[in-house]
Amino acid sequence: MIPGERVIAVDGGGSGSRFLCDGPAGRVTVELGPANVYTDFDGALRVLRDGLGQLARDMGADLTFAPACLALAGVIDAGIADRVRRALPLRHARIEEDWRAALEGALDGRDGAVVGLGTGSFAARKSGDAARAVGGHGLRLGDEASGAWLGRSALSRALHAAEGLADASPLTDVLLDRHGGVAGIVGFARDAAPADFAALAPEIAAAAGGDDPHAVALLREGAGYMRRALSALRWAPSEPLSLIGGLGAAYLDWLPQDMAAAHVPPAGTALDGALRLAHEFRGQR
Amino acid sequence: MIPGERVIAVDGGGSGSRFLCDGPAGRVTVELGPANVYTDFDGALRVLRDGLGQLARDMGADLTFAPACLALAGVIDAGIADRVRRALPLRHARIEEDWRAALEGALDGRDGAVVGLGTGSFAARKSGDAARAVGGHGLRLGDEASGAWLGRSALSRALHAAEGLADASPLTDVLLDRHGGVAGIVGFARDAAPADFAALAPEIAAAAGGDDPHAVALLREGAGYMRRALSALRWAPSEPLSLIGGLGAAYLDWLPQDMAAAHVPPAGTALDGALRLAHEFRGQR
Repeated sequence: MIPGERVIAVDGGGSGSRFLCDGPAGRVTVELGPANVYTDFDGALRVLRDGLGQLARDMGADLTFAPACLALAGVIDAGIADRVRRALPLRHARIEEDWRAALEGALDGRDGAVVGLGTGSFAARKSGDAARAVGGHGLRLGDEASGAWLGRSALSRALHAAEGLADASPLTDVLLDRHGGVAGIVGFARDAAPADFAALAPEIAAAAGGDDPHAVALLREGAGYMRRALSALRWAPSEPLSLIGGLGAAYLDWLPQDMAAAHVPPAGTALDGALRLAHEFRGQR
Repeated sequence: MIPGERVIAVDGGGSGSRFLCDGPAGRVTVELGPANVYTDFDGALRVLRDGLGQLARDMGADLTFAPACLALAGVIDAGIADRVRRALPLRHARIEEDWRAALEGALDGRDGAVVGLGTGSFAARKSGDAARAVGGHGLRLGDEASGAWLGRSALSRALHAAEGLADASPLTDVLLDRHGGVAGIVGFARDAAPADFAALAPEIAAAAGGDDPHAVALLREGAGYMRRALSALRWAPSEPLSLIGGLGAAYLDWLPQDMAAAHVPPAGTALDGALRLAHEFRGQR
């Protein structure tokens, strides 16, 4: 085979990393653990080198010169992108933030916007050559509308209900019962990771479907945040909008009418998006 | 001296512990480090035994039989109060939650309500023999209106301002500048303890005095939370209300009119309150 005919795509994030090599003779994929280059640079690089090494072995080829797009969680600035690029055994690597590939994959390269709704959250929009994202930032200050945010907010409301600062609802009753009241919820929250809060999100979405007032208020608040984020990105209702991530579908019933009307199911995954970006990068070289 | 004429008061909390022994020949006081019996039982007990030992040495007396009231952070249920009581070298110890002594001290034993506004927050009310508190619970799910909540909320607003989800203000500008933009704020928040967020609160209160729209919105939101907490406690505007803690004074300008009209400066400290409760306990034996 001629070197350069193969391209590499990587989707590296907090929940796992997916590697793909696409060439004339077919594709190989590899799945490994999480890789966040901001919170654990060395650990993430081990995962990335390991994944690239497995692709090369599976392909039976040297991939050093293959054009690659790596879309990675934690690429918060150009400096960290450079550090990643220098640390990889690739000569033609494009390092992107993870949202960039998710946007590209969901809209299959078209202009429009996505809102990512998993344990965390972000909103992103592409218009011609420009792409921009807002949000994310983690649960302490951000990740509004995300699964972790929904779970934490519902537990706060359960405390308010237990102490008479808010009305009780079936959702707050069940949260208090299951955790053993106020002290149990406080103890759970003290040690909970964002994923632990997010584990409550499907139940909250189901409660909203059953008209639980606290759950409905939270999903409406989350949708309101998305509206503000999309406004900041200058998204217009004439453009397609995809909700992606595990909680995307849960929010569909709670979107304002113009956002619901613009919604299109995601065309592909972040790995598909990274592959598009890798082919684009190959064409530009 | 006749055993039993002396009483002991202890105010043990997250920022330090104060010990007082009051007797016919005068008072002695001791100050030691923090003691939270929920988050660090053994460490808190070391502080408490140490303080009681120092009081006994300073008094030159055996205090085993002296009536005592210990008002302690982290007394979340009767079980932990019992554990503390059994672990102390005191035969007549009343173990209370820390808010109980703060309420007693601020209102000098009268009926009424207090809102505690330091790094964390709580609201409490006494009516006859009944006293009850709501709130607190830590920054993850609660502590609304507190210093930590103000600081964290202002940083979230600064992120929104930087990304176009909210208007900028002098406060959001200065927070972004000082921390080095969005990435700097996110990095700060990832490792910040509640006290680190609370360190921003005086600046936020000052900005509210200068009509900064974000700061004003936060202090109004905090005051709104206090209103809900006091309603849950069935506080009536005919009763006195004290705002206590480092941020109490900062909120005075932002209270609804009925709450402002009911405000009385705190009559005394939590240690004064614990001493009142110890004398009451002595009378009941």
